[in-house]
Amino acid sequence: MMVVIETVNRKLIMERVSFAKAGCPIARSLERVGEWWSILIMRDALNGLTRFDEFQRNLGIAPNMLTRRLKVLVSAGLLERRKYCEKPVRYDYVVTERGLDFRPVLWTLAVWGSKHFAPEGPSVVLVDRETGKWAKPVLIDTRNGRTMTDGGYIPVTGPAASKRLRSRYPLRSVRSGLPLEMNEEPPPGGVRYRGPAYE
Amino acid sequence: MMVVIETVNRKLIMERVSFAKAGCPIARSLERVGEWWSILIMRDALNGLTRFDEFQRNLGIAPNMLTRRLKVLVSAGLLERRKYCEKPVRYDYVVTERGLDFRPVLWTLAVWGSKHFAPEGPSVVLVDRETGKWAKPVLIDTRNGRTMTDGGYIPVTGPAASKRLRSRYPLRSVRSGLPLEMNEEPPPGGVRYRGPAYE
Repeated sequence: MMVVIETVNRKLIMERVSFAKAGCPIARSLERVGEWWSILIMRDALNGLTRFDEFQRNLGIAPNMLTRRLKVLVSAGLLERRKYCEKPVRYDYVVTERGLDFRPVLWTLAVWGSKHFAPEGPSVVLVDRETGKWAKPVLIDTRNGRTMTDGGYIPVTGPAASKRLRSRYPLRSVRSGLPLEMNEEPPPGGVRYRGPAYE
Repeated sequence: MMVVIETVNRKLIMERVSFAKAGCPIARSLERVGEWWSILIMRDALNGLTRFDEFQRNLGIAPNMLTRRLKVLVSAGLLERRKYCEKPVRYDYVVTERGLDFRPVLWTLAVWGSKHFAPEGPSVVLVDRETGKWAKPVLIDTRNGRTMTDGGYIPVTGPAASKRLRSRYPLRSVRSGLPLEMNEEPPPGGVRYRGPAYE
């Protein structure tokens, strides 16, 4: 069974790599964590678990699968291995800066899951660790303090976008008819977009 | 090959369901979208794609795999099928409210990917659609305006947490030695946590 999973994973990883090459930052992220075991391991690591046995017990994951997932997370730079015992050799898996930066992804996942799939109420909440007060996490544009989920924001190709990626973004500037770039002056009438929330 | 993937998926889905039953909102979210194809389909749908052929071309995904993924996303309530042609029967896949709510997850993934895996600079950026100005997305606690990623926030079990979930959260209140609950007064000295960022 493990062999089968491994074969499938390899195929998926190969396909994923080709997306990442296209430059999409979401695809690049998924290349590192786009596997739900990895996301749950990161959740547990950010909750303070560091040892193989702890992850194994908490997740009920097969040991060889856990070994492989930890290896991927270490090589992707989200976890760091630190030896805590010489005989037998044992390691702690410690969250790196890059791993800490992954928290907003986990937290927005948790907020979304609580809102849409927890009719009985929230099972996990984020609290201010000093006051214990329940947080209300919202994605904000810190340039102007605006909530980003009111339909006022759209993804566009950035300066480093490849031709292929540019061709995949349906956004066009009104003035030029060309894909809107960040180094381009925004058109006077705003931008035209055929996405679902913005019509 | 498809049969193999399907078998693996079924096994993964069964395991995932058992996590979701434990009440963790992250596991519940992953139950719906914890498969990187699904996340990329949602990315494209939020970018304005609605048709089977468009998704297929953009993702280079096998048609039967796409059919299955779309079915899962429709039954999970992230996409809605709308008939646009009678003969032959053809559907648009339109993003629902629940699907729109998924944007912060995608955007935090994009921000993380751009920061850590795009040495050549960002390929995709989020812009204010009126001004075209580049956004700086940050997860904020709207109760007090604080950035949530400075280490000041932690996940704790909420009112609807099961016993099993409670046992998996290492957080304890200093005063009681018991898991901190939201319906519990926060302890005077804050909370004790053995997670990586907070020591």
